[in-house]
Amino acid sequence: MSNANPSPSSLPGDPAAGAAIKATDRAHVFHPWAAQGRIDPLAVAGAEGSYFWDHDGNRYLDFSSGLVFTNIGYQHPKVVAAIQEQAGRLATFAPGFAVEARAEAARLIAERTPGDLDKIFFTNGGAEAVENAVRLARLHTGRTKVLSAYRSYHGATTTAIHLTGDPRRWPSDQGAAGVVHFWAPYLYRSPFHATSEEQECERALAHLEDTIVFEGPGTIAAIVLETVPGTAGIMVPPPGYLPGVRALCDRYGIVLVLDEVMAGFGRTGRWFAAEHFDVVPDLLTFAKGVNSGYVPLGGVAISAEIAAGFEDRPYPGGLTYSGHPLACAAAVATITAMAEEGVVEHAARIGADVIGPGLRELAARHPSVGEVRGLGMFWALELVRDRDTREPLVPYNAAGEAAAPMAAFAAACRKAGLWPFVNMNRTHVVPPCTITEEEAKEGLAALDAALSVADTYTTGG
Amino acid sequence: MSNANPSPSSLPGDPAAGAAIKATDRAHVFHPWAAQGRIDPLAVAGAEGSYFWDHDGNRYLDFSSGLVFTNIGYQHPKVVAAIQEQAGRLATFAPGFAVEARAEAARLIAERTPGDLDKIFFTNGGAEAVENAVRLARLHTGRTKVLSAYRSYHGATTTAIHLTGDPRRWPSDQGAAGVVHFWAPYLYRSPFHATSEEQECERALAHLEDTIVFEGPGTIAAIVLETVPGTAGIMVPPPGYLPGVRALCDRYGIVLVLDEVMAGFGRTGRWFAAEHFDVVPDLLTFAKGVNSGYVPLGGVAISAEIAAGFEDRPYPGGLTYSGHPLACAAAVATITAMAEEGVVEHAARIGADVIGPGLRELAARHPSVGEVRGLGMFWALELVRDRDTREPLVPYNAAGEAAAPMAAFAAACRKAGLWPFVNMNRTHVVPPCTITEEEAKEGLAALDAALSVADTYTTGG
Ligand SMILES: Cc1ncc(COP(=O)(O)O)c(C=O)c1O
Ligand SMILES: Cc1ncc(COP(=O)(O)O)c(C=O)c1O
Repeated sequence: MSNANPSPSSLPGDPAAGAAIKATDRAHVFHPWAAQGRIDPLAVAGAEGSYFWDHDGNRYLDFSSGLVFTNIGYQHPKVVAAIQEQAGRLATFAPGFAVEARAEAARLIAERTPGDLDKIFFTNGGAEAVENAVRLARLHTGRTKVLSAYRSYHGATTTAIHLTGDPRRWPSDQGAAGVVHFWAPYLYRSPFHATSEEQECERALAHLEDTIVFEGPGTIAAIVLETVPGTAGIMVPPPGYLPGVRALCDRYGIVLVLDEVMAGFGRTGRWFAAEHFDVVPDLLTFAKGVNSGYVPLGGVAISAEIAAGFEDRPYPGGLTYSGHPLACAAAVATITAMAEEGVVEHAARIGADVIGPGLRELAARHPSVGEVRGLGMFWALELVRDRDTREPLVPYNAAGEAAAPMAAFAAACRKAGLWPFVNMNRTHVVPPCTITEEEAKEGLAALDAALSVADTYTTGG
Repeated sequence: MSNANPSPSSLPGDPAAGAAIKATDRAHVFHPWAAQGRIDPLAVAGAEGSYFWDHDGNRYLDFSSGLVFTNIGYQHPKVVAAIQEQAGRLATFAPGFAVEARAEAARLIAERTPGDLDKIFFTNGGAEAVENAVRLARLHTGRTKVLSAYRSYHGATTTAIHLTGDPRRWPSDQGAAGVVHFWAPYLYRSPFHATSEEQECERALAHLEDTIVFEGPGTIAAIVLETVPGTAGIMVPPPGYLPGVRALCDRYGIVLVLDEVMAGFGRTGRWFAAEHFDVVPDLLTFAKGVNSGYVPLGGVAISAEIAAGFEDRPYPGGLTYSGHPLACAAAVATITAMAEEGVVEHAARIGADVIGPGLRELAARHPSVGEVRGLGMFWALELVRDRDTREPLVPYNAAGEAAAPMAAFAAACRKAGLWPFVNMNRTHVVPPCTITEEEAKEGLAALDAALSVADTYTTGG
């Protein structure tokens, strides 16, 4: 890769500065999800568009968009300028007031959310959005239980991690009162022994209805689902699934919460993933892409019916930085720039014409690729030891030696100048929605090289 | 007040713009803690130092610091410049990397936290900080229960609101498994029928130890306490109380979490309120003042012993924006400017020499003032119907008509050009730590006028 290792002099940053930053980091920063003594964080010097670079002259094409949030790429000049302008005018202000950037961000979001989800409750991030969606659903229905899916991620505050269906929930799950997990469609490893999309859809809906009936429909406040599950593997649901869930919610008076913290704001090639399925939830959670994470922001879009319940009764939830002016100004600029520059349509096109076909072509040549799935800028490669048995390249929740094949794959990506998103036995291809065709092809070439390393761990390898 | 109603032409903003912002706000912004149909949010046009103004030419001296977070005042030029600079350089980056602003913010915070609280886990705000402190304490001890105080506020995510000891907890408290509330010192309305500070302290500690013993010391992971309870009434604890709590924690192997989200970063005239009591907690939560809320940021400072437990074992918690570069750059600039400009010492001095004496002088003249208490820039006036019976001016958790006297008091403050912090029967005097002596005196004069309105509701009034 021509860009992988440019001469250090061609990039800002210097090795001594990088070492100093790393030393300070290791002395004082306690990192999320990490064994602090076992990490060796890369010192970042800068970023632009689809790339970032370290202090040692290494540049990486970011196929992870950070944690899948820089939908508009790094350092977009219009978003940077809007933050600078708002900082100079009114950097911060308390909730409870009408502030231009806050009102305008809410309006632009409401304009894009499906149906009548026209009232916006702002939070700082995704977990708080999920917390408040559950609170709204519980108060609206007067019920307590919430159903969510195995193979999901909803954040790490108490209710959000209880809803989460991945192993990060376990250490925090001391009696998750009122949360019940069910299985969602995942044809490649079907929980329902299905052999077609139609069958998977039908069986998943029957399973969900059985769960509702046996939990007691009158006890269930909400079903919380990622429209397209992200961290857990980008399992695009069969076309009939979400409409079927919507119908079940209507039948049993259950609030449908679609979590679009990761899938929203262009990631799937639409403003919201729900549009692909013509489904309107009662509550929609967002964060990340709303302002590409330039300033922490999340929120819940609320249906007219649910909002009406809080016209005369106070909504019992809040946070100091709800509707933070700087975060909202970044959202206004991001949404406006995405609209003006056609970023959502671009993501759909590059996904359909370049990344999708490119990944399928790689799958055809690399025995380690068990499945390619996705849409827009939201793709997963399922890496396997054996395509026939579909045995994952590393076991579920593997760590240390057991995870070595995926670590080797990730190292090979980085060596080829690509920063991959890796989770369990999968790599997700989730670059900025602004990625160019040339950059996408450059990334596919890096993946090609790294998959050859993964291939060596297959039964045929 | 000369500044209360300057001619509209002297301030930026115009009434038509204000009306338009308000209309958009009412159409699309769902406000925290509010009955949406009953609010009429003021449209803010700008802010600087200790003041903000609306679009209709009204300027207010902010005795609330927003929600008690703008410790350095509005639009501090050094903090604004640092945000603008960081936005232009690297507005956002994922956790898991070493980033200069993140490392430097952690270092500057660790330098100021008491004892060996030298590892910083960053969040977006206070609630998430409390959530993670509780998670750390539970994992460190292997125990589940957490003790917190009635008359407290810890945030609104699930665990944070469960710990909270004010009525906002009620709607979200569907089985707060593992949380037990106890009573902390509050001599003015002593839960222990004490008549002196020493007695209040001794009885409060005995009550806490009884609670520990009857809950089972081996079941209790943490005691979570605001060093100086803020929203609940700024009850500065007697000198021996927190050392006594520390000793109980040591005796029973319980983690002491001091929540300094509101009290930290200069509010009490020290960097951290714990310094007043010579107490070192095991975990200290912060937010607000760390960067004066210019960009959402919070966190937990972690003791060496607790951090050591996560050297080889992954810490199971995180969030997308942990250690957000823009938020951390604002923290670096805020802390640096506060140090260079002596803001903490200034807050101590203005509190001791101007605000404290000024409030006591008001109390001597206004029968509605039952008690004045506080320190630094952190003061409460307890408004009463009758000084002898201490009957609050409005009942606990009053709303609507029952709360009219406090609404009348607040309206009188605003009419006099002062934006007050009002909670139940109290007004808190919590201006920016940068407030000048002249501004403080101007605010005291406005309070004087507004207290005359409160006086009319006293039994003698
Ligand atoms: C679908 C989904 N929901 C919620 C969250 C939590 O968001 P945050 O990390 O901002 O709290 C995430 C984060 O990845 C997510 O992907
Ligand atoms: C002591 C204390 N803890 C926690 C919080 C919650 O912080 P946040 O609103 O940022 O979630 C607050 C907010 O006022 C607070 O005062």
